[in-house]
Amino acid sequence: MATQEKTPVENAQLKDIISHAKEYGFIFPSSEIYDGLQAVYDYGQMGVELKNNIKNLWWKSMTQLNQNVVGLDAAIFMHPLVWKASGHVDSFNDPMIDNKDSKKRYRADVLIEDKAAQYEKDGHYEKASELLVEMGKLLGAEDLDGVRELIIREDIKCPISGTANWTEVRQFNLMFSTQVGSVAEDATTIYLRPETAQGIFVNFLNVQKTGRMKVPFGIAQIGKAFRNEIVARQFIFRMREFEQMEMQFFVRPGTEMEWYEQWRDTRRKWHEAIGVPTDKLRFHNHEKLAHYANAALDIEFEFPFGFKEVEGIHSRTDFDLTQHQELSRKKLQYFDNDLNEEGKPYGNYVPYVIETSVGADRLFLMVLCSAYTEEEITEGDSTKSRTFLKLHPALAPVKAAILPLTKKDGLPEKANEIFEELKYDFNMIYEERDSIGKRYTRQDLIGTPFCIAVDHQTLEDNTVTVRDRDTREQVRMPISELHSYINKAVSFKSIFEQLA
Amino acid sequence: MATQEKTPVENAQLKDIISHAKEYGFIFPSSEIYDGLQAVYDYGQMGVELKNNIKNLWWKSMTQLNQNVVGLDAAIFMHPLVWKASGHVDSFNDPMIDNKDSKKRYRADVLIEDKAAQYEKDGHYEKASELLVEMGKLLGAEDLDGVRELIIREDIKCPISGTANWTEVRQFNLMFSTQVGSVAEDATTIYLRPETAQGIFVNFLNVQKTGRMKVPFGIAQIGKAFRNEIVARQFIFRMREFEQMEMQFFVRPGTEMEWYEQWRDTRRKWHEAIGVPTDKLRFHNHEKLAHYANAALDIEFEFPFGFKEVEGIHSRTDFDLTQHQELSRKKLQYFDNDLNEEGKPYGNYVPYVIETSVGADRLFLMVLCSAYTEEEITEGDSTKSRTFLKLHPALAPVKAAILPLTKKDGLPEKANEIFEELKYDFNMIYEERDSIGKRYTRQDLIGTPFCIAVDHQTLEDNTVTVRDRDTREQVRMPISELHSYINKAVSFKSIFEQLA
Repeated sequence: MATQEKTPVENAQLKDIISHAKEYGFIFPSSEIYDGLQAVYDYGQMGVELKNNIKNLWWKSMTQLNQNVVGLDAAIFMHPLVWKASGHVDSFNDPMIDNKDSKKRYRADVLIEDKAAQYEKDGHYEKASELLVEMGKLLGAEDLDGVRELIIREDIKCPISGTANWTEVRQFNLMFSTQVGSVAEDATTIYLRPETAQGIFVNFLNVQKTGRMKVPFGIAQIGKAFRNEIVARQFIFRMREFEQMEMQFFVRPGTEMEWYEQWRDTRRKWHEAIGVPTDKLRFHNHEKLAHYANAALDIEFEFPFGFKEVEGIHSRTDFDLTQHQELSRKKLQYFDNDLNEEGKPYGNYVPYVIETSVGADRLFLMVLCSAYTEEEITEGDSTKSRTFLKLHPALAPVKAAILPLTKKDGLPEKANEIFEELKYDFNMIYEERDSIGKRYTRQDLIGTPFCIAVDHQTLEDNTVTVRDRDTREQVRMPISELHSYINKAVSFKSIFEQLA
Repeated sequence: MATQEKTPVENAQLKDIISHAKEYGFIFPSSEIYDGLQAVYDYGQMGVELKNNIKNLWWKSMTQLNQNVVGLDAAIFMHPLVWKASGHVDSFNDPMIDNKDSKKRYRADVLIEDKAAQYEKDGHYEKASELLVEMGKLLGAEDLDGVRELIIREDIKCPISGTANWTEVRQFNLMFSTQVGSVAEDATTIYLRPETAQGIFVNFLNVQKTGRMKVPFGIAQIGKAFRNEIVARQFIFRMREFEQMEMQFFVRPGTEMEWYEQWRDTRRKWHEAIGVPTDKLRFHNHEKLAHYANAALDIEFEFPFGFKEVEGIHSRTDFDLTQHQELSRKKLQYFDNDLNEEGKPYGNYVPYVIETSVGADRLFLMVLCSAYTEEEITEGDSTKSRTFLKLHPALAPVKAAILPLTKKDGLPEKANEIFEELKYDFNMIYEERDSIGKRYTRQDLIGTPFCIAVDHQTLEDNTVTVRDRDTREQVRMPISELHSYINKAVSFKSIFEQLA
């Protein structure tokens, strides 16, 4: 192979990612034949494999590697009082305002934030900061009239109609609701859960007792959540239906800060272990804490549209368990026998909670953005560009493609033999159409780490060539070595060991 | 070990299964601290592992073992026209009737079926059969007044009030609906999908084109579905929120019957391969076919409450794709180049579809019922009983328990070393509390195939004892052999090979 120069193109545009995801079967707009459903997406044949690998890796990292973390799969439907206790019924709201001329609806706080951003852009930093502080106070006091007055005073106009002809500001709850039971008087309004965490809290004692868990211990869960976002945007970053991977770690009160720091570091290490460049990740401490938290930060990734939250690490105190205890009148306490053994009196207490909460779809988008690579290859006098997905082999949807060089001379049969032998352990593709070069290109585009070519020499000595996706280099090896060669690269083990 | 006699107790009662599932962390009632939510359940720390193993096995059996089957993960939210096209908006109904005295609501057809069952019990077989035929005709003609008259004529009474003071019969749609968008004029009613299949149909061309699939090919999907069942019952058998595993296999029209038969046999073999006794399974051909089907059968399992459907195999013709084609005005046709190569003219056609549709929760219940074993063990003069879960090792939530004989002498440290070495590949439990006998019993109850005991000899020669869950026999082996010993038993490979 000739000398090469590679020039990775930095900062792939979101639109490139979106069209790549569509074209190669990663993500389709939902119900596309009916012109789609806003802010909802489907995972295609490649996307579902990548997403499953991400979920599976997170799950095993949490539950299998840690003796004191177990899993749970609570239903999406929960008793409505759960959302009363958690505060979602009363305060999971966005303040909305309508422009009477355009009939368009906006989040009032976003309008004001955009105005502040404009001030900043114009160099009026103090004005911007004052505006945000004032808005924060008004929202904190739930003074919606005051928020409206602020919009009027700042002369904020509707971008569509250009007028300031605004309605009043109203709170809009983000939970989806539905009716369960029949249409008669016994129907009950229930909600689609806006987060999975509450499923863990209400099952805290069930898991602790039936699993004989000792504090500190954690419960991990993967599942769908739903939010009626008014302004859903940025592809799969903010969807109305999305998937969360949350872990609630129950600790003795007073020890929460050490666990907070430990999980923060463990989780960051995890993102790095799956191949996200360190300089694309950062911590962002919350300046304003939610009422239930005594420490909180985001792990942010630099998406094409800037640094944004991928995962949140929160020290939630005993807020949730205490709320459920009060409303359900069931004790949600842990009897800590070890306190006695340490010479302290026996004690029942409501544990404190450290939460790690990551969006599976955001993680997917992060992995896709990190992997999307364009490079220019110079071979002799000619230069060509190549696009490929540099996915961690353990996450790649397809582990290997089995490619007979031609459709005849028994090569397809030989290639199929290899496929049949390896298929029990690896997700693979068999492909005999088109030239070998075109087939390599296609595998690059879906991120397949290995292309196994079956040629005439294979029939003679049972060797094949294995092409590496990233280096494009080929090595010849016996068929009998394929399994361990692939397995070494695609196993979760190499990632797990980085976490140890 | 002394001579043993084992007497497996046939036909475990459903109530035993339910209480076992609760007590050992398999299934909890949803939102239990708020006294539950009817017909919704949560999977506990053991349940989620068992369910994931079942789902994972199905997924790999479908997609990884078959070159021509790929996966998909469509959203729960879909465009409302999807359910218009599929027929669910207009006819996914149950006929309901209320008793005015008790205020209780019943499915009208179930009331009549119960009456027919009573006739049968009393030996009036002809009367029973006539009644069912008459009801079928009325429902087919959507003659709801006629159904009400039949209930009155047969003198069917409310079991609560004992009266025949009935309201009219009304159709009740089983889909859950919710509002998407803001509360104003732009809100849209959407549905929670009542089946996952439509997500596959609307993505048919997306997958076919981006995946370059050639007919015949299949698309497999696992996901939640929701039905507002009025009479939900039998534990997790019929829930309002449940999980489906569906595969739609697209074939050339005219070839559907051979594929129907092939998938019927493949799927039955699958159930047998995971350890379900053959005599507990049966095919049940549908006598009445749905309007879209030209052949259909259920694979039934003998639950404690009788033979019931676990999986459906349906030949759905081109009904769904044609419906979507008409409503969306998008062509959903396949261009079959092979027809040309066979000397026939080029052809575009709407493929026919064979569906395999299995309920993940029903499968879970089937596996649990098959595994639940009570036996009496006679050792010398004494007899004791033992309960254990005889799960296929590949499905068992925990693969091995690492048990130091005592809490001292360095045994816990040695046991932990073994745990750390094996944890990358197997889900395991470490447990040092209680006597070794009690710990074995506990592992039996959650179905752990292997208990690894670390004793003083281990410190000397690096061997451990491995106890088999089913035979209770112990073998001594070097620590270095544990990995391959466990792996051989718990790998999916042995199941896959039975399917080949």
